[in-house]
Amino acid sequence: MRWWGWGHDGVSFTHEDKPALAPFLRQRIDLDVTRVTSVPVAFEHLDIAEPSLSPALQAALEQALGGGPASTDALDRVVHARGKSLRDLVRHRRGELGRLPDVVVRPGDEDEVAAVLRAALDADAVLIPFGGGTSISGSLEAPARERRTIVSLDLSRLSRVLAVDEASRLARIQAGAFGPDLERQLNARGWTLGHFPDSFTHSTLGGWIATRSSGMQSDRYGDIGDLTRAVRVVTPSGLLATRPVPSTSTGPSVREMVLGSEGRLGVITEATLHVRRVPERRIILGYLFPTWADGLAAMRDIAAGEAAPSVTRVSDANETAFSFATRKKPSILDRLKSRALTTYLRRRHDFDVEAMCLSFIGYEGSPRHVAAQRKLVGRTVGRHGGVCIGSSPGELYDQKKFDTPYIRDFLLDRGALADVSETSAPWSALPELYDTVMAAGHGAFDELGVRGFMMCHLSHSYHAGACLYFTFAFKPSAQEDGLREYDLVKSAIQQAFVDSGATLSHHHAVGTEHARWLEEDISAPGVAMLHALFTGVDPGANLNPGKIV
Amino acid sequence: MRWWGWGHDGVSFTHEDKPALAPFLRQRIDLDVTRVTSVPVAFEHLDIAEPSLSPALQAALEQALGGGPASTDALDRVVHARGKSLRDLVRHRRGELGRLPDVVVRPGDEDEVAAVLRAALDADAVLIPFGGGTSISGSLEAPARERRTIVSLDLSRLSRVLAVDEASRLARIQAGAFGPDLERQLNARGWTLGHFPDSFTHSTLGGWIATRSSGMQSDRYGDIGDLTRAVRVVTPSGLLATRPVPSTSTGPSVREMVLGSEGRLGVITEATLHVRRVPERRIILGYLFPTWADGLAAMRDIAAGEAAPSVTRVSDANETAFSFATRKKPSILDRLKSRALTTYLRRRHDFDVEAMCLSFIGYEGSPRHVAAQRKLVGRTVGRHGGVCIGSSPGELYDQKKFDTPYIRDFLLDRGALADVSETSAPWSALPELYDTVMAAGHGAFDELGVRGFMMCHLSHSYHAGACLYFTFAFKPSAQEDGLREYDLVKSAIQQAFVDSGATLSHHHAVGTEHARWLEEDISAPGVAMLHALFTGVDPGANLNPGKIV
Repeated sequence: MRWWGWGHDGVSFTHEDKPALAPFLRQRIDLDVTRVTSVPVAFEHLDIAEPSLSPALQAALEQALGGGPASTDALDRVVHARGKSLRDLVRHRRGELGRLPDVVVRPGDEDEVAAVLRAALDADAVLIPFGGGTSISGSLEAPARERRTIVSLDLSRLSRVLAVDEASRLARIQAGAFGPDLERQLNARGWTLGHFPDSFTHSTLGGWIATRSSGMQSDRYGDIGDLTRAVRVVTPSGLLATRPVPSTSTGPSVREMVLGSEGRLGVITEATLHVRRVPERRIILGYLFPTWADGLAAMRDIAAGEAAPSVTRVSDANETAFSFATRKKPSILDRLKSRALTTYLRRRHDFDVEAMCLSFIGYEGSPRHVAAQRKLVGRTVGRHGGVCIGSSPGELYDQKKFDTPYIRDFLLDRGALADVSETSAPWSALPELYDTVMAAGHGAFDELGVRGFMMCHLSHSYHAGACLYFTFAFKPSAQEDGLREYDLVKSAIQQAFVDSGATLSHHHAVGTEHARWLEEDISAPGVAMLHALFTGVDPGANLNPGKIV
Repeated sequence: MRWWGWGHDGVSFTHEDKPALAPFLRQRIDLDVTRVTSVPVAFEHLDIAEPSLSPALQAALEQALGGGPASTDALDRVVHARGKSLRDLVRHRRGELGRLPDVVVRPGDEDEVAAVLRAALDADAVLIPFGGGTSISGSLEAPARERRTIVSLDLSRLSRVLAVDEASRLARIQAGAFGPDLERQLNARGWTLGHFPDSFTHSTLGGWIATRSSGMQSDRYGDIGDLTRAVRVVTPSGLLATRPVPSTSTGPSVREMVLGSEGRLGVITEATLHVRRVPERRIILGYLFPTWADGLAAMRDIAAGEAAPSVTRVSDANETAFSFATRKKPSILDRLKSRALTTYLRRRHDFDVEAMCLSFIGYEGSPRHVAAQRKLVGRTVGRHGGVCIGSSPGELYDQKKFDTPYIRDFLLDRGALADVSETSAPWSALPELYDTVMAAGHGAFDELGVRGFMMCHLSHSYHAGACLYFTFAFKPSAQEDGLREYDLVKSAIQQAFVDSGATLSHHHAVGTEHARWLEEDISAPGVAMLHALFTGVDPGANLNPGKIV
């Protein structure tokens, strides 16, 4: 992972093969994509504080690692200092590194994790577990004024699928496994976890559990909480191990306390999860709806019906326009097809091309099952004025779905800020929630006097509601004050969530970025319960302090 | 509710209309059903201690109730003293009442609940919430040596369905609503909660949530935890109110901490729950499998397939025999049909009538959906040698499903003890778990030198496993020592659960009956987390102390 941005060196987002993008960004956020105005400070110019690590603790950590290294390498410390929130990226690019971890350790098994935790507690050090480092909620950074030694515990060596119980459709998997590696190991035996968050390429199982992640196919596979049947966690009072039973009545769920715990209760080392056979057939179809209201209503009715698609997603008109603007240069055939479709839509359905909304609906299973589901869903779509536009948009979406995070770096290079905020709410609340959040975001843009852009999609449908996922972008009016201006927009959106009865985050966790809305979301006694739990388990506040509450 | 047993006066179980039952019980547990040997002591002979209630607390409670009564009525106190575990029934029948609550209050709304809690805390009294009083895990009894005043808070006046959000398919329901009342209110608007535990007739929504209940149709509707989207709970630090969002990432789930909390965190006053339209078609079909192993394998394969039935249940050979023994006197036509079926089964499928296992599978939805599901399930059943025996056994099961608890009183009158123990485990573990538990139970019978009976069914199928529900009965060798002998059998079964990697209970909660297996189930750090939570929220241990941990 790059220390200053997303992903691998050599991979980046470009406008050059997307002819409609430059005019789109010019028009929407007043951005000239040809001008790179801001680049990350060079690594060798970073001002990296000396690590605060006593020889005794260093020796204890190396003993815990069976003689392995306790790394104080500068790049290691910088990479492990933060996640990839917009605030993290902006500050890292500027060379404002904050409180770096003093040492990075990479235990090789659960016993070594336990020994590292013991050594850290004995020395009254702070321990911060690190998976893929993709948090966008500030879950990984040490408090600025932390004076104790900070140990970053990197789980990447715990990366194996340990066992698959085929009759029970359960897999035991180590917490440090990255998405692609984990799927490769499962696929080789004919299985899949089916968990594909946007961060998939660079995030780990342990990170998903610690933040309550949700994947693109959650409609079928469930959120990570639904997938996770049992956990193993190294805690200050020993190894917490729950049983992989399908349902249980053992008081308040300890498994659910680990989900979303962001390292505050200990270090997740392993989990037992639902797996499914790689489906015989898998298809994501594109649909167009005349309006956002039609798209929302269709998704709600699909959730209430007897079909069970694997993906339900609909973009608002802005996001639809953005999707079309990021298409690569079309072939002549593509252009003809596209023009024919547009003509057809205008004539046949009285579609307003400016208002239309792009939707993806996925199906999985046996050919017979897929066919039956498509038919059922197709009827509901049709009732709301939608039309199917075939499988090619879905294939494109499926291919590029993990590339989105690179766009933020592309925009930062050009002086623009972009970020996401997502929430969930009951079906009945979604239309007004959308309007309120859009108004709040644009109100903040107006206050700043900038031309800002906001777009949204609905994804992750449930019985009683769905997730609304907002993306916003703007060019700050004063470059050096970008984060203050970002705060204003982000806060306006988050405040609109909780004011509308929605939640502060559907699947991006609390960390430090969302902590100030927690009490409004789960009420003061709810926060008190979290305090009671964290303080009771970790009275010295050694485990990732300052996160969530 | 009867003070000494299950249900309403005037309703009871009888063998008289079931010609095969007397010989069955004679053969299996050496019981003569014609001899009633043990009756509950008369209420007027009970030795009821004076309530310990200061005039100040009484006044404070009555003020909290807006002038309503704080009842010290003897029958009230006896009914609210315990649930309906076998241990509860035996002791109540003998007149061994234990530590009765000193006062019973029935607040009329959430504000009154909060005022009662405040009054109890101010006086350092103990508060025990009471729903329907059907707990069979000892969740309701005060500790024997408790010296503080004990307030039983009966929620039965909070019984309303407050609102239905039709678009979101969510209902706000008060916690004191009993099953039938709640369904009546929902059905009147075309909706159903779909939660039907065995205790349905006499249990409440708040009790279901406080104990992690599961209903007979959980395959389709989910357990109470899946159904419950938001809770309102009066806690020592104020009103805990979570939001009815479909999924959220706000740290460890506070909603999940309330589920199964058995009154230790406060008083549940209201919840927002999934509801569904009353299905257009609903059918429960009977099937017969040649053996228990065939039945288990079929249920596993159905869970792994593309059908989604509402009920999956298969009885072992013993429970199948018991079901046939409790049939009412058949008509000549019934007998002819039954004889024809037996002949058919023997010829066509080489069925061993002693080994065959009765199964119920339920379907709900549109006629087309029901037909498609039946067909899919039918194929899986057939692959495992099962045959469909039509809808009449299912209709019978559906009608008498809530009557089972009356049988315990019938047996107690005749000197026999019967109880249940249920668990859940992954599919791969179920066959051996069954054998181990059966061996443990019969080992205990042998040790006692009694002829004991055990039977079992699988119900509540999930992705990765299912619930096994055991029923056992025997006539103690020494009547006065019945509870000691019962303990031996019950403990052997429970120990076999946790020794086999299964859970101490799938849906009957921990209470005091199962608390000794909690550490083996969720591990010592798990118990420490529950301690941290309970102690932090309720430092004075005023809320239903002694339960769970």
